[in-house]
Amino acid sequence: MDILALNCGSSSVKYQLFDWKRKEVVAKGMVERVTIGDSFIIHEVPGRETYREEYECPDHRIAVQLIIKTLTASTHGVVKDMSQISAVGHRVVHGGEHFTCSVLIDETVLDAIKGVQHLAPLHNPPNISGIEAAKAVLPDVPHIAIFDTAFHQSMPAHAYTYPLPYEWYEKYGVRRYGFHGTSHLYVSKRAAVLLGKDPKDCNIITMHIGNGVSHCAIKGGVSVDTSMGLTPLEGAVMGTRCGDIDPAIPAFIMEQEGYTPKEIDSILNKKSGVLGITGQYTDRRDVIEGSENGDARCTLALAIEGYRLKKYIGSYAAAIGALDAVVFTAGVGEMGWLIREKALEGLEFMGIILDKEKNKNTMTRKRESVITTPESPVKVFVIPTDEELVFTEDVVGILEGTYTDHMNFRYSFSGTDFQRK
Amino acid sequence: MDILALNCGSSSVKYQLFDWKRKEVVAKGMVERVTIGDSFIIHEVPGRETYREEYECPDHRIAVQLIIKTLTASTHGVVKDMSQISAVGHRVVHGGEHFTCSVLIDETVLDAIKGVQHLAPLHNPPNISGIEAAKAVLPDVPHIAIFDTAFHQSMPAHAYTYPLPYEWYEKYGVRRYGFHGTSHLYVSKRAAVLLGKDPKDCNIITMHIGNGVSHCAIKGGVSVDTSMGLTPLEGAVMGTRCGDIDPAIPAFIMEQEGYTPKEIDSILNKKSGVLGITGQYTDRRDVIEGSENGDARCTLALAIEGYRLKKYIGSYAAAIGALDAVVFTAGVGEMGWLIREKALEGLEFMGIILDKEKNKNTMTRKRESVITTPESPVKVFVIPTDEELVFTEDVVGILEGTYTDHMNFRYSFSGTDFQRK
Repeated sequence: MDILALNCGSSSVKYQLFDWKRKEVVAKGMVERVTIGDSFIIHEVPGRETYREEYECPDHRIAVQLIIKTLTASTHGVVKDMSQISAVGHRVVHGGEHFTCSVLIDETVLDAIKGVQHLAPLHNPPNISGIEAAKAVLPDVPHIAIFDTAFHQSMPAHAYTYPLPYEWYEKYGVRRYGFHGTSHLYVSKRAAVLLGKDPKDCNIITMHIGNGVSHCAIKGGVSVDTSMGLTPLEGAVMGTRCGDIDPAIPAFIMEQEGYTPKEIDSILNKKSGVLGITGQYTDRRDVIEGSENGDARCTLALAIEGYRLKKYIGSYAAAIGALDAVVFTAGVGEMGWLIREKALEGLEFMGIILDKEKNKNTMTRKRESVITTPESPVKVFVIPTDEELVFTEDVVGILEGTYTDHMNFRYSFSGTDFQRK
Repeated sequence: MDILALNCGSSSVKYQLFDWKRKEVVAKGMVERVTIGDSFIIHEVPGRETYREEYECPDHRIAVQLIIKTLTASTHGVVKDMSQISAVGHRVVHGGEHFTCSVLIDETVLDAIKGVQHLAPLHNPPNISGIEAAKAVLPDVPHIAIFDTAFHQSMPAHAYTYPLPYEWYEKYGVRRYGFHGTSHLYVSKRAAVLLGKDPKDCNIITMHIGNGVSHCAIKGGVSVDTSMGLTPLEGAVMGTRCGDIDPAIPAFIMEQEGYTPKEIDSILNKKSGVLGITGQYTDRRDVIEGSENGDARCTLALAIEGYRLKKYIGSYAAAIGALDAVVFTAGVGEMGWLIREKALEGLEFMGIILDKEKNKNTMTRKRESVITTPESPVKVFVIPTDEELVFTEDVVGILEGTYTDHMNFRYSFSGTDFQRK
């Protein structure tokens, strides 16, 4: 039973084929520059050389066909024919309030996903194109949607309601949704295993820090607050997104510069964050190097990022009340020891005692580590995330009828015997 | 030596006359509906009946003349003639980066205040009109500016810099400034007295909660972070201001509704916050009554306000590292026991042990109280604020040459023998 996971962006389609019986990734890759010309596929199979092919994909359907063609090719393929693919899991960024867990996609579900596309105009339309394309190419297998927002639907109203005219919520669905749900789910379940506790007894803050950054307050195993909001712009400093700012600033700058709403939105999403502060970098390794070479704005960017992470940890600890663990994950969370140190120093008053040496030596995307001292009442873990595994297990659970929602479903990685491959 | 404090809003002028020798308020009052027609003065003298007079004030100059006329009137006045007024203290909302303390107003200072009026287009122009009017009416006495922003100018760059294109800071001064400075100053100095420590040894979070709301992280006696930002819109939920939201929302709603930048700014400032959530109330007493009568949106508004206050306490505790005290002040901070309870419960992990009974019984604008248990490592105080006293002492200190800045100046209320009048 092979499960295909698809993640359609506006100009890319990522994929991963997972062999459920052998519990291993068969192949993964990405089609880039979809719809914009000069598109190509990068196809990786463990133990083989990476395969690359130029292939025009004017739309997502051709891109999905290219993926199937590549997976089944006699030369560089990995399966004999399409019949080996038992189901497809689709990443859908915005599920609005409708979707609290992963679901089998039928016409009603597809309509509901279309019904909230105004909330994620950059993300949901390509997700929908991908679903339609894959259903056309693989019409006989189940297609399942996994939402970035679903994990956070357990938030109480006082955490998701904005202090804004209430009719904006009723009319347009303006509220906090949160994103990166599968990542927060995965690392929080792993943290429970490392704590030796049932997820339902765990209070955890998860810090997903990649190019996009979001934090999640998890109480009794479920999300009770998260830093991204209506859109992925809110919260922490990100590579190019501003995160939390004075909400008067967009209109202030529009007045000064004569920008349209689309233009200011684009600047806040693509020219701000670490890029805005440094003026040139998004990759934190470049920022650290710049800082070491005396670039004051790089030093400032690191200080801002660490400081704001620290404030979120304090804020979510207060929201939860009593903390078992803090988890760092994703590219910067797993590799960025300096940013973790800045985020964690001075938090002894709330029971976090960092082991600076351990933290400094923890730079890997493969191993789970604890970076606090043995005496530290609150543990801090670095846990490599694995969103694709959540996709795959949700798909299999739905196929086998064992999945109802992420709170009650027994994931393989919730077991003490789980071995990351 | 009588000191006149003036606070000019867009359509109002508040005043207070303080007798420095006898250390008491001689008179205070307000001219309302300045520039908009049907204006009138309300004039209060301790021990006398309130005086009210209808008097057209088409501009701030006429309003200031009316105040002088009222203060010197033989019937309801309090001073013989203008010569008894030794100096005037002017509240100025936005001092930008130029002003880190109160200053004597000369042409250069006035130009500098005008130079940052784009940052506070609703507040600085009437402040400037008030200064010009008062200098015309009282040309022979010193006029001194006290800034809402000055107390926060000790913030480090990583706290005041937004993750936005850096040129917006260079070109327009887009950064965090903070407001309510004199209130945070007053209550933090009082808290130091109650703690029996030098302000320089105190780590305190001050929560100014009125119709406007701001919080301040005070480390070693100085402001290191505050919740209001470029403008007073950022931070906590306020009566009509939204506070922290996803910064994508203004442009999102502008697209949906076709609003101009001015229109969205007006809604975020005047139709949001507690008013936005409840749809009808800004006064927290109305919200509490509504909640008691089963209005779900009033219950939600209280839950949101308490929850967001709690998160700020956690966030600023993390920013500071080790906390001595939390202070509640201003209308809601002093009177709103229920909101304080919601903000403080569940913070035992960071050393805050609320005495629920004491908190419930603390509803006064006159007395300083502690509302934590004797064992609580972190103290929580309720301290009535007194911004006018800060104004007056800054003015006197500048007149007498003893004031250099708020960090080194010895305020009367920093003494253990200080008695509030």
